[in-house]
Amino acid sequence: MTDTMILHENALSGNCYKVRLTAAHLGLPLERRHYDIIAGETRTPHFLETVNANGKTPVLQVGDRFIPESNAACFYLADGSDLIPAERFARADMLHWMFFEQYSHEPNVATLRFWLAYIGEDELSDAQRAQIPGKRAGGEAALGVMDRHLAGRDFFVGTGLTLADIALYGYTHVAGEGGFDLSLYPHVEAWLARVAAQPGHVAMDA
Amino acid sequence: MTDTMILHENALSGNCYKVRLTAAHLGLPLERRHYDIIAGETRTPHFLETVNANGKTPVLQVGDRFIPESNAACFYLADGSDLIPAERFARADMLHWMFFEQYSHEPNVATLRFWLAYIGEDELSDAQRAQIPGKRAGGEAALGVMDRHLAGRDFFVGTGLTLADIALYGYTHVAGEGGFDLSLYPHVEAWLARVAAQPGHVAMDA
Repeated sequence: MTDTMILHENALSGNCYKVRLTAAHLGLPLERRHYDIIAGETRTPHFLETVNANGKTPVLQVGDRFIPESNAACFYLADGSDLIPAERFARADMLHWMFFEQYSHEPNVATLRFWLAYIGEDELSDAQRAQIPGKRAGGEAALGVMDRHLAGRDFFVGTGLTLADIALYGYTHVAGEGGFDLSLYPHVEAWLARVAAQPGHVAMDA
Repeated sequence: MTDTMILHENALSGNCYKVRLTAAHLGLPLERRHYDIIAGETRTPHFLETVNANGKTPVLQVGDRFIPESNAACFYLADGSDLIPAERFARADMLHWMFFEQYSHEPNVATLRFWLAYIGEDELSDAQRAQIPGKRAGGEAALGVMDRHLAGRDFFVGTGLTLADIALYGYTHVAGEGGFDLSLYPHVEAWLARVAAQPGHVAMDA
């Protein structure tokens, strides 16, 4: 891989952290460009035209090409490595957990963290406030699915760390900031410690 | 591939249709098992314990193993075929559009279709009704991103049909049922016709 790689990101975002964590496990250098999401820096005409028409971070830049969507960026970095299972069913099962993360976990766990810990409940719109109970229940359901799956397993797929673990670690390890009580999910807590103890792990604020 | 493959599904779901459309393009036979989502058939103890702990369809059963999440099931079926680009950047770019579909498109376009065309606006909860304007804006934004990307291109990634097209076709071609006016997105309309004209294409109700 000879192209310079630049991560367009926000340091507080678990989605951006996933990409940094994948790169750290692979020993790949990433330049980092910070954007203030709340100030609208990912909605400027320049960002929308050049980096991501969908106005979101992270975006992985590889030379002069761009990959939006955190889990797609992780897949690009890890393609051909042990972080993606070589066996066909296991590879699809890893993607199952990565799509679960973006559909059933992130919109609940990450959104409540952002709303409650970074925006502040008093600043939310009525439409946002009306969604809190649904997102609370959805996040608890996702954590419950994870907890039952992890009973008797060390990692989400197979016997070692894959992108499924990295994708789900991103926001699960800070779910407490969204008001989720992780002590209710002991298998998840043990897995979080296991992921954090892997060689090559870096913290979110590293 | 010698294992019998069974699709646990609901025939009205665009997510389930994606898996059938992928199998049709590949000439792979799928047995179909229907579940009535509104009647709660994907929330029974048997379904949760055996098929998908997350209580959703589609789930692709391969022998005695199960792959939830539509886009992961499509990836399993298409792994090694021309529906997944062999080149590393293009493969990640395909996944970018598949994650975009599940995060920025489906929760808006598919949810409004389900709420307005199948549940009925009068039956929605106050919390659901409060989300309609946000989901309308989110769906229009996603269709706009697609339309700008498709200007001057035939398919989402590279020069031929990939899983990115199949994933986005699933709910875009029925977006009108959710109240979206596709005539506002002429490049999307042309692409829909192009996808439907591909050899091997099957309709949602086939």
